[in-house]
Amino acid sequence: MKLGFVGLGNMGSAIARNLIKAGHQVTVYNRTRSKAEALRPEGATVAETPAEAASTGLVFTMLADDSAVEQVAFGDKGIIGALPRDGVHISLSTIGAGFSGRLAQSHRDAGQRYAASPVFGRPDSAASAKLTIVIAGDDQAIERARPLLDAIGQKTFILGSEASSANVVKINGNFLLANMIEAFGEIFAVLGKYGIDPKQFLEIVNGNLFRSPVMQNYGNIIADERFDPAGFKLKLGLKDVKLAIAAAEDVNMPFPMASLLRERFLMAVAQGKGEKDWSAVSTVSKL
Amino acid sequence: MKLGFVGLGNMGSAIARNLIKAGHQVTVYNRTRSKAEALRPEGATVAETPAEAASTGLVFTMLADDSAVEQVAFGDKGIIGALPRDGVHISLSTIGAGFSGRLAQSHRDAGQRYAASPVFGRPDSAASAKLTIVIAGDDQAIERARPLLDAIGQKTFILGSEASSANVVKINGNFLLANMIEAFGEIFAVLGKYGIDPKQFLEIVNGNLFRSPVMQNYGNIIADERFDPAGFKLKLGLKDVKLAIAAAEDVNMPFPMASLLRERFLMAVAQGKGEKDWSAVSTVSKL
Amino acid sequence: MKLGFVGLGNMGSAIARNLIKAGHQVTVYNRTRSKAEALRPEGATVAETPAEAASTGLVFTMLADDSAVEQVAFGDKGIIGALPRDGVHISLSTIGAGFSGRLAQSHRDAGQRYAASPVFGRPDSAASAKLTIVIAGDDQAIERARPLLDAIGQKTFILGSEASSANVVKINGNFLLANMIEAFGEIFAVLGKYGIDPKQFLEIVNGNLFRSPVMQNYGNIIADERFDPAGFKLKLGLKDVKLAIAAAEDVNMPFPMASLLRERFLMAVAQGKGEKDWSAVSTVSKL
Amino acid sequence: MKLGFVGLGNMGSAIARNLIKAGHQVTVYNRTRSKAEALRPEGATVAETPAEAASTGLVFTMLADDSAVEQVAFGDKGIIGALPRDGVHISLSTIGAGFSGRLAQSHRDAGQRYAASPVFGRPDSAASAKLTIVIAGDDQAIERARPLLDAIGQKTFILGSEASSANVVKINGNFLLANMIEAFGEIFAVLGKYGIDPKQFLEIVNGNLFRSPVMQNYGNIIADERFDPAGFKLKLGLKDVKLAIAAAEDVNMPFPMASLLRERFLMAVAQGKGEKDWSAVSTVSKL
Repeated sequence: MKLGFVGLGNMGSAIARNLIKAGHQVTVYNRTRSKAEALRPEGATVAETPAEAASTGLVFTMLADDSAVEQVAFGDKGIIGALPRDGVHISLSTIGAGFSGRLAQSHRDAGQRYAASPVFGRPDSAASAKLTIVIAGDDQAIERARPLLDAIGQKTFILGSEASSANVVKINGNFLLANMIEAFGEIFAVLGKYGIDPKQFLEIVNGNLFRSPVMQNYGNIIADERFDPAGFKLKLGLKDVKLAIAAAEDVNMPFPMASLLRERFLMAVAQGKGEKDWSAVSTVSKL
Repeated sequence: MKLGFVGLGNMGSAIARNLIKAGHQVTVYNRTRSKAEALRPEGATVAETPAEAASTGLVFTMLADDSAVEQVAFGDKGIIGALPRDGVHISLSTIGAGFSGRLAQSHRDAGQRYAASPVFGRPDSAASAKLTIVIAGDDQAIERARPLLDAIGQKTFILGSEASSANVVKINGNFLLANMIEAFGEIFAVLGKYGIDPKQFLEIVNGNLFRSPVMQNYGNIIADERFDPAGFKLKLGLKDVKLAIAAAEDVNMPFPMASLLRERFLMAVAQGKGEKDWSAVSTVSKL
Repeated sequence: MKLGFVGLGNMGSAIARNLIKAGHQVTVYNRTRSKAEALRPEGATVAETPAEAASTGLVFTMLADDSAVEQVAFGDKGIIGALPRDGVHISLSTIGAGFSGRLAQSHRDAGQRYAASPVFGRPDSAASAKLTIVIAGDDQAIERARPLLDAIGQKTFILGSEASSANVVKINGNFLLANMIEAFGEIFAVLGKYGIDPKQFLEIVNGNLFRSPVMQNYGNIIADERFDPAGFKLKLGLKDVKLAIAAAEDVNMPFPMASLLRERFLMAVAQGKGEKDWSAVSTVSKL
Repeated sequence: MKLGFVGLGNMGSAIARNLIKAGHQVTVYNRTRSKAEALRPEGATVAETPAEAASTGLVFTMLADDSAVEQVAFGDKGIIGALPRDGVHISLSTIGAGFSGRLAQSHRDAGQRYAASPVFGRPDSAASAKLTIVIAGDDQAIERARPLLDAIGQKTFILGSEASSANVVKINGNFLLANMIEAFGEIFAVLGKYGIDPKQFLEIVNGNLFRSPVMQNYGNIIADERFDPAGFKLKLGLKDVKLAIAAAEDVNMPFPMASLLRERFLMAVAQGKGEKDWSAVSTVSKL
């Protein structure tokens, strides 16, 4: 089928490529055009504007933050102006729950259909179509997106008709990862003072207790201090922690651990580590 | 072989029973004598004092906290007074790193051998001899303890000659569990306000990302609010968080997440939840 | 002279009244018109729109938050559209440093002059023209505002040409008050458990050590739990704490105490205390 | 009258000197004897042991912490062993509420009288007999101490018969100071990034709002970074924050701000600032 794809960073490019591979006619748009051109040999049509990608009738967006999505959605030559009646917008980006809800309303007001569908996974999972996907929002948007999501991920969870629910789950999933990273950072710093090898701690506590591959992986990265190149940039980690705080605040809820994480990520950014992998927040604990 | 066992709570009784089953002649002591008598039919000799248990030449202790160990070790009719030269004390309890180090020194001063050997696992793992064990301290103490530990756990990690290292690892392992519980508590409280089922969150985030059986288990307990009977009492969880803070403080290290956990556990105790399972600390986040 | 005044809440009405008393011809605007009409008998002209107030050439705004100021400044019939070239906008509101900076830029772009001039003091100080005022921004705006500020406050501090500086000082001044309130809340809760009278604590510690009338006053309010009617609403206190966090974040700075305060204010709001005096945040500590 | 004085640091020496000046026959003891000898020319009798000072029938102690007091009270040649029946022990030290309570009990058990009487003030206030004093405990101990306290301070507050009450007030008074220091540290760090002079902030916010000489003084010290020589050492500040946490914990109370302060003081100690003035904790916020 014909569809549009806006946002061709590491994640977006890998996902768009899988949609092309699956036989779809994909019209791609990216602000820095070269990244769009890179997909032309694989069969993509390169659009001049987000509007052009949206005019296909179904458009994905995969962008860095609320403000980037706001621009391609509401801006001049943007998606909302170009998407036909009953057209579908699937937002794959990790954006705020509040903003996602407002976006849903704007699409409804324009007679369009919107679903939030953030993904779990790093670029390599995106490349191998092994993302875990959550989706919520307009029923028909979900229905039309389902077969497409099957081409880019290994599993999709449907979370109901409130689009922001998908964002809340994604944001809190990321918070749980950030929390684990910070916990390892604080623990390993103490172990270091006692001359205890953090890898042995990991072997004992994760190998026999938690048994989580993700914990093992992050634990090793932190123990080895492998923070470059960034799999997920620390400054984006800060953004996500702030989204978690905001999502809680929107429902009048404190979120003490997220507040603590915000402080730590900010300190890391102040120490010039914003471009490193977010697991580098662990270094704030080293004294 | 002949050995002594002091401290017959849920954990201690299960462990002592496994030592008896393994063919050892076990002299047991417990402050509340009835718990010691309960092991007599299985072949235990019941001691009147800790000293009597220690006079066997090798004694295990499994007690609630530093102060309980201090009493049986240093008190009148205590272990240090009765253990023969080169006798061995294996401390299975979750005690402070600083206190464990002082205990090691006292045994050395008395020409005795000491190893700290805290265990990971709840009473059911103790009963089925599936504990994960860490041990550190005097070389010969470790060597003599090894075959005995094989009878009570499934895996033993040796952490060197500094006894307190084993306690530091145990304390921080427990901190990591407490941290996970608190994180689930805060996240689930927010999800609740959004009408999102915490079990679905668990299925998505643990089932596809973390893949940790322990996280799944605790997540379910918290989602279902199954806090009675306590597998591990909240007031003991507070004790362990305080041990983590103290172990860090002993090496001049801040421990911000542990400080936050201390506040939450204290609030739970103030709310009258000290006797519930420690996962009930999650209820502090419910507003 | 002729001038406009937008925003006639408790603070704004008191200030506008003093400007009228000082002999100025004041054109007032308020969204809820009745509050504007109330000033007509005293000599005010009632405007239909913010634009009408701005067309006088110098306009004050005193509104609840960034969004309210944004609306009267940028909205249809707003200030920026109506203020003549070289016209002056003096913002008395407690607004964000970042937003104040953007507002300054918008006025510059329109050939207008802007200064941020937040005030310290409660409605009674406003009524008696005893406010403490800080001002920063465009030189000529400050020069023209000075004699007017003398009519509404007892002291004005000039903080340079960067408008946001005035907001940063105001926001952090409020943070210091919020911090004092929370500290009293936590301390008094502990004293209560020991049966110690918080007023005696105040007499000893403030009376002999700090000697601050403001601390004495807030300490008494908290000890007596006099939270109604609100002198300054708790939900506005939360807003200000968030402004402090945002102002720090804009320069990549952590702000751990403000993060902690945010949690406490949020908890108070979640407990339904948003309309009470902000000193009611102290009740969160009572267990 | 005849009395003993144990502990001749900066504070103790100044206080003992004032007691001598007031005409009392003072038998002084200090672990490092030279400090005791320094008072001989002024009329003091130099004791060999705490017991000797206690045998006078009324003994003051002014020591660094719980452990120092424990040693002179319970140790060999200690106070409890030497104080006659109905003899009085007045503890001027800033010690833990829990420990003070246990000390009270030990004196009661020995038929002796004890009052906790911690003092507010730095060495210069001690020298000029301008300390603010709180006292609680045994009625007769208080009665007999009163005229003596008048010779060393300007005001004494009586807090009832529970000795620990005096310690709780003192500890929380110090917490309030520490809190103010940390607040200034965090605020000034943010102001610095905005190029705002912290002294101007102080002039505005303290000069017009708080009007506290203590805040002005500490604010200036922090703005000028005058941390040497230490008026009150940072490592003792950490001790006091920990006493505040412990006093709250003893009554099952969280104390979130104190927990945060503990983290900051620990970080300062880890940065090698333990011997500087406690206001140096403010430097932790500088990034």
